[in-house]
Amino acid sequence: MNYMLKDENAIYYECGYSCDNALYLSLGSEAYFITDSRYNLDAGQNVQGAKVVINGDLYGEALGLLNKSKVKKVFFDPKEWTVAGFERISSQTKIVFKQEVDLSHKKRIIKSGEELKILSKAAKLGAKAFKSLAKEFRKNGFGEDEYTLTHRAKSILGDFGKYELSFDPIVAINANAARPHAMPTSTKLEKNDLLLVDAGLKYKRYCSDRTRTVHADKYFMFDTSQKFKSKKIQKAYDTVLKAHDNAIDKARSGMKAKKVDALTRDIVTKAGFGEYYIHSTGHGVGLDIHEMPYISTKSDTIIEDGMVYTIEPGIYIPDEFGIRIEDMVAMVDGKALVL
Amino acid sequence: MNYMLKDENAIYYECGYSCDNALYLSLGSEAYFITDSRYNLDAGQNVQGAKVVINGDLYGEALGLLNKSKVKKVFFDPKEWTVAGFERISSQTKIVFKQEVDLSHKKRIIKSGEELKILSKAAKLGAKAFKSLAKEFRKNGFGEDEYTLTHRAKSILGDFGKYELSFDPIVAINANAARPHAMPTSTKLEKNDLLLVDAGLKYKRYCSDRTRTVHADKYFMFDTSQKFKSKKIQKAYDTVLKAHDNAIDKARSGMKAKKVDALTRDIVTKAGFGEYYIHSTGHGVGLDIHEMPYISTKSDTIIEDGMVYTIEPGIYIPDEFGIRIEDMVAMVDGKALVL
Repeated sequence: MNYMLKDENAIYYECGYSCDNALYLSLGSEAYFITDSRYNLDAGQNVQGAKVVINGDLYGEALGLLNKSKVKKVFFDPKEWTVAGFERISSQTKIVFKQEVDLSHKKRIIKSGEELKILSKAAKLGAKAFKSLAKEFRKNGFGEDEYTLTHRAKSILGDFGKYELSFDPIVAINANAARPHAMPTSTKLEKNDLLLVDAGLKYKRYCSDRTRTVHADKYFMFDTSQKFKSKKIQKAYDTVLKAHDNAIDKARSGMKAKKVDALTRDIVTKAGFGEYYIHSTGHGVGLDIHEMPYISTKSDTIIEDGMVYTIEPGIYIPDEFGIRIEDMVAMVDGKALVL
Repeated sequence: MNYMLKDENAIYYECGYSCDNALYLSLGSEAYFITDSRYNLDAGQNVQGAKVVINGDLYGEALGLLNKSKVKKVFFDPKEWTVAGFERISSQTKIVFKQEVDLSHKKRIIKSGEELKILSKAAKLGAKAFKSLAKEFRKNGFGEDEYTLTHRAKSILGDFGKYELSFDPIVAINANAARPHAMPTSTKLEKNDLLLVDAGLKYKRYCSDRTRTVHADKYFMFDTSQKFKSKKIQKAYDTVLKAHDNAIDKARSGMKAKKVDALTRDIVTKAGFGEYYIHSTGHGVGLDIHEMPYISTKSDTIIEDGMVYTIEPGIYIPDEFGIRIEDMVAMVDGKALVL
């Protein structure tokens, strides 16, 4: 299959190197990594299995290479290309371009042994960072607002400049946690607050992703055994934890993704919180923080060994509180192994 | 003019609010801000002059609104839309879609008085952060590597969580500074090194952008009067500073942008460093860190009052050193005012 890629992670997956201005062509037995002169040295040293071509005009260079090649059909992901970029390439050639949605994500859905090792290490570093974060928040977090706490979470997750982050961490207190993608506010952390932290870091470009919700007293840790003073919160918490554990226990290779979703959703629904579980059970994780498989009510994707995804049920009661517990799992020997 | 926007900053400019999943339609006298339910509350409170419409399927909703309207022609920026997103909207309607490259950037090229005030404040906060950064680096920077220094620059620029950054700061030592878009390495800062810092923060969503290159002794500040021990570096530094000052002194409204570029380039070329000045003189700054006008050798854009752009000449000698001095200017009463 001939194809062309524009996304940075899609390109990295092909040749072990990428940068923020690159274009990749796979044409028969030839492959080309096109970038501008700023990346000449780095690309030359790191690109594997593709010829590095330097040209400030990536699209023009790609067009020339396509026209020189003898290929008749080239696949591309329409979600990955802008109208302008695609037109520049496709309007001056007789080659037929075929849309293949999620072209790269589909290739990446089953992780190799090497990728599993890296993802496992990313997850372990993420878990370790949560421990350091609990220590920091217990000692210096009370009285600080979500902006400041988010900044400290970034510093600790990235080990003060050593790692990039998978995404901007979410640090949300009480009612703010009811928004699954909460942005920081000036709400300050007080003793006995509910505190939700959703954060991850990148190790060798692969993402970790983890969420804990805790009762923030002076001994709190980001573990899963939490005691809240409010009965309603405790009931919701116990329900989310049960749903989370149930999916991890019972997910199997060969199941449809929507069956895995039901492993969390049925428990939440049965406990009466169904309407407050407003998102899917999880998503694949790899070079991108969100990739395939998607663990949703509608997904017919068959879960297979080598897939890595999150299990992250949640209950969000507007203006009151939100709870989410998230871990990454890898399917190994038919079962879900927590990374 | 009817138009549709997808870019977050382009949408913010229209209605004073935006988020990472929004689509904006301006159809005759009606305007629509489409987003998903996560942003219902925030959008309802903050969007001005447009109807907020909540639908998880942004493109489907837009298609419905377009088909219901009586418009015949809609403009869009082909650099702003993916092939998939555009096709979703354009394939099921009789409306004619017209490409207008840089549609939003063109509207934003002349800043309003209110925008100039915000950009001026952003630049002042940026300059203040450079002072704090010098203090931190003088005290704790020597012996630390570029990863750690970059992390500290992020913390200080963002005032420990208070501000977002315009971009990931560049902190580059000696030969690393020869790459205009240097990524951090494990090179450690030692006394008497050359140190280049390029960084900015966002104030009310508007970007600041500033670069200083210094001789890092124990008294160093990020000002422009620098003494290096190497004569070659000093000559290059003095040349860049002269080029920078010359453009600020002589830029006038009514000039073509390429004339402003020549105000820096001619000085660098005359001093014998022309081949090492490998980028344009500057770029517009606003909601985006790079926007119009572009101050390059080929730009025929006429500079006008209200434009805000950087003056940032540089000399980059591979494997030796790099120098860049950058300030933001606003054209006011025909002249360039440093922000």
